[in-house]
Amino acid sequence: MIFFELLSKDQIEQVHEASLYIMAQIGLDFLYSPALEVLSKGGVRVEGNRAFFPRTIVEEQIQKSPSQFTLYGRNSNNNLIIGGDHITFVPTNCPPFVTDLDNGRREGTLKDFENFVKLTQASPNLDMCSNIFVEPMDVLPEKRHVQMAYSCIKYSDKCFMGSVMGVKGARDTLAMLSILFGDLRTLTQKPRIISVPCSLTPLCYDETMLGALMEYAKAGQPQLINSLVIAGATGPVTLAGTLAVQNAEILAGIVLTQLVREGTPVVYASGSSNADMRSGLLCVGSPEMAMNNVFAAQMARYYGLPSRGVGALCDAKIPDAQAGYESMMNLLMAQNSGINFVLHAAGALESMNCISYEKFIIDDETIGMVKRIRKGIELDKSTFALDVVKEVGPRGHFLDKDHTFNYFRSELYQPYLSDRRSFEDWRDRGATQCMVTANKIWRETLKKYQPPDIPKSVDKDLKMFIDTA
Amino acid sequence: MIFFELLSKDQIEQVHEASLYIMAQIGLDFLYSPALEVLSKGGVRVEGNRAFFPRTIVEEQIQKSPSQFTLYGRNSNNNLIIGGDHITFVPTNCPPFVTDLDNGRREGTLKDFENFVKLTQASPNLDMCSNIFVEPMDVLPEKRHVQMAYSCIKYSDKCFMGSVMGVKGARDTLAMLSILFGDLRTLTQKPRIISVPCSLTPLCYDETMLGALMEYAKAGQPQLINSLVIAGATGPVTLAGTLAVQNAEILAGIVLTQLVREGTPVVYASGSSNADMRSGLLCVGSPEMAMNNVFAAQMARYYGLPSRGVGALCDAKIPDAQAGYESMMNLLMAQNSGINFVLHAAGALESMNCISYEKFIIDDETIGMVKRIRKGIELDKSTFALDVVKEVGPRGHFLDKDHTFNYFRSELYQPYLSDRRSFEDWRDRGATQCMVTANKIWRETLKKYQPPDIPKSVDKDLKMFIDTA
Repeated sequence: MIFFELLSKDQIEQVHEASLYIMAQIGLDFLYSPALEVLSKGGVRVEGNRAFFPRTIVEEQIQKSPSQFTLYGRNSNNNLIIGGDHITFVPTNCPPFVTDLDNGRREGTLKDFENFVKLTQASPNLDMCSNIFVEPMDVLPEKRHVQMAYSCIKYSDKCFMGSVMGVKGARDTLAMLSILFGDLRTLTQKPRIISVPCSLTPLCYDETMLGALMEYAKAGQPQLINSLVIAGATGPVTLAGTLAVQNAEILAGIVLTQLVREGTPVVYASGSSNADMRSGLLCVGSPEMAMNNVFAAQMARYYGLPSRGVGALCDAKIPDAQAGYESMMNLLMAQNSGINFVLHAAGALESMNCISYEKFIIDDETIGMVKRIRKGIELDKSTFALDVVKEVGPRGHFLDKDHTFNYFRSELYQPYLSDRRSFEDWRDRGATQCMVTANKIWRETLKKYQPPDIPKSVDKDLKMFIDTA
Repeated sequence: MIFFELLSKDQIEQVHEASLYIMAQIGLDFLYSPALEVLSKGGVRVEGNRAFFPRTIVEEQIQKSPSQFTLYGRNSNNNLIIGGDHITFVPTNCPPFVTDLDNGRREGTLKDFENFVKLTQASPNLDMCSNIFVEPMDVLPEKRHVQMAYSCIKYSDKCFMGSVMGVKGARDTLAMLSILFGDLRTLTQKPRIISVPCSLTPLCYDETMLGALMEYAKAGQPQLINSLVIAGATGPVTLAGTLAVQNAEILAGIVLTQLVREGTPVVYASGSSNADMRSGLLCVGSPEMAMNNVFAAQMARYYGLPSRGVGALCDAKIPDAQAGYESMMNLLMAQNSGINFVLHAAGALESMNCISYEKFIIDDETIGMVKRIRKGIELDKSTFALDVVKEVGPRGHFLDKDHTFNYFRSELYQPYLSDRRSFEDWRDRGATQCMVTANKIWRETLKKYQPPDIPKSVDKDLKMFIDTA
């Protein structure tokens, strides 16, 4: 598989040079004194909150992180390799609102959160849980991060993402993982969690994110070092300028992780897009966002790091045609460009403000399609089937051949949502739109859901931890 | 731009060898004696209707067609280069049914046909007209091809596709072009039309298609030599087998065009997909179809020929989320893999059985997005804008910068359909679904439509020709 690329080798180096200029001459603000101390000790020039990164430090430190690593699931069937030729699909993260066709749009609750963990666990296509499927507004703010981590553990044995709510968010998450898997040293050897600390664009990291970033780095837990530049608002409107700012932010964050603990696995993570210039609002269903997936994959390969891009993001308010075409654009572009970690791969509506039950199912189907593309083509004597072609000959057909029966399940993607019936059949059975079919599917999936095993004593300890956290 | 690829160089050669085996050992049926005569004279072994192609003839003849050529529009602003790094988007072709939100699904009429020509002419994204936007069932069958050609000429000055209804279809089309542009010699020097003769899979060409193919070839008019294998029905269910059959059919058709007239421009054209194995019906919204776009682009590059793939095809019955994600998958894959001629790029529903007014607008928007991706990124001092980044500095914003105002129109795609408003704004203004917005847009576009100029005497001659044809 040759990945789709938009930047030439020379252009990649231009971006790298522009970012080094920004890092050395303009500098970045780090609003957290422990971070400034570590940077300063590592050879970065610090003036007040601002850090100026010399080229040598940057180029030295970014080589210290591995090009791929394993994330270990509670169920080892759900282990994930992040990097190389691998691709991981992860549901959306952080929306405050939730919607479904029956109850409409509303604030998220813990019940909704749990439902999405269950749908992820049941999904044949989603590889792990995110961190905040939806903000559970009925849980006290200071308890949310532990409650969400508990729900991910209780209702799924796939990996999940860690809280980035400052030092405490990270420490509590690590403590819960220790209850499950053993002490911190064990976690460092076999990472169980990946988190997504995000810069405050332009050219800043705040205390909350830096606290979490440093805490996870100390424990050697993998992190998505993330920048989300909004071209035209928090970055230059030109993609080149946005790319240079994004790259400077990500590299600065990576340097910090390596200065905290050399070899901490990091992912070159980008969610940059652009503002809609009529309203100034972020838009994530734009072709520029899909292009940014390509840029992120290419820059990450240049640095020898895994990449994080975006999946099924859209600006649509309901799971309509716009939701379909924008989401598939981002998702397929992530696959075609070689992105390793596809965040927001399922459920998102409204430029990430809302998660939809129906959209979650729709995106799961599209991930299945994209994974079929990823599988590629097998060429050998049996798949060329020239003997069958000879037997059938001109003007024959293959419908009743053994070869067809033997191969169709493994060769062709079998959709569970997409409607492939004739118009007449579709009309006579209710003429349902895709989102209506998706509604039936998520309801049935939740009905049939089976929780994974968890030892009773561990469950008790986790619950006790939540009470005292 | 590096195109996405699924086949290695070695695998491409395996496909080539498998096809040469089929062509030499199994053979293809040509149900038209003038074609058999030309093939026989050219060194192809003919037994009855069956032609067996020696390797040397195939490899010699397929080199004779150019790797790119120009299609001349009546308005020279609409000239198109087919091949190389160029991409051309063409609406859907051949559906018998038409639908819109107000009137529902019905048989196509000439009025519908004309409306789609007008929408294509008005489109900023569609590059030319197809041949049969929709079958005009209210026109006598024997008059349809001339009536459709006339409508394309009358209501658009973009290029259009030629009739493949046998010798007569091609001759009448060429005669009408001669009225417009001068005699056949002129047309040969400056091709005005491209047609899509299609094999009868597996391994056959019928009289209708061969009649048209040979007639256009004699006039040196470009042709899309097309194969549509349905994996599991008219070809092996395995993609390798389907690819070998498809390639054999296309190469055989190309050899014939070159034996009729050396140097006739051809396009390596594929529309292959697979059967839904539950029903045996063709499906075109499958990931296997999107993969076939990649295979077609790669095989064509291997042979040094332009490629034709598929655009916004889907199996959905209405322009819902499924229509959105399936269509974007095919369209973006065509762009990412380097397809040159994207047929069915707008309007299609129901596995090509129906054209939808709303879907036509939806697809036009997605083509605009895909064209933005195609434009790529510009990297220079002004687009990096490091002086602006320096001026803004950490924690500033770019919304009010001159640089932002100067660049946003050229840098960012401006959608005309996609909804990027806030949820509240969208809800308060009617909470419309994408297809409802598209309905308003096509109605307004038709209202504002302005026909291109055509000399009165030419118009009169064309009408007279239709009466006598």
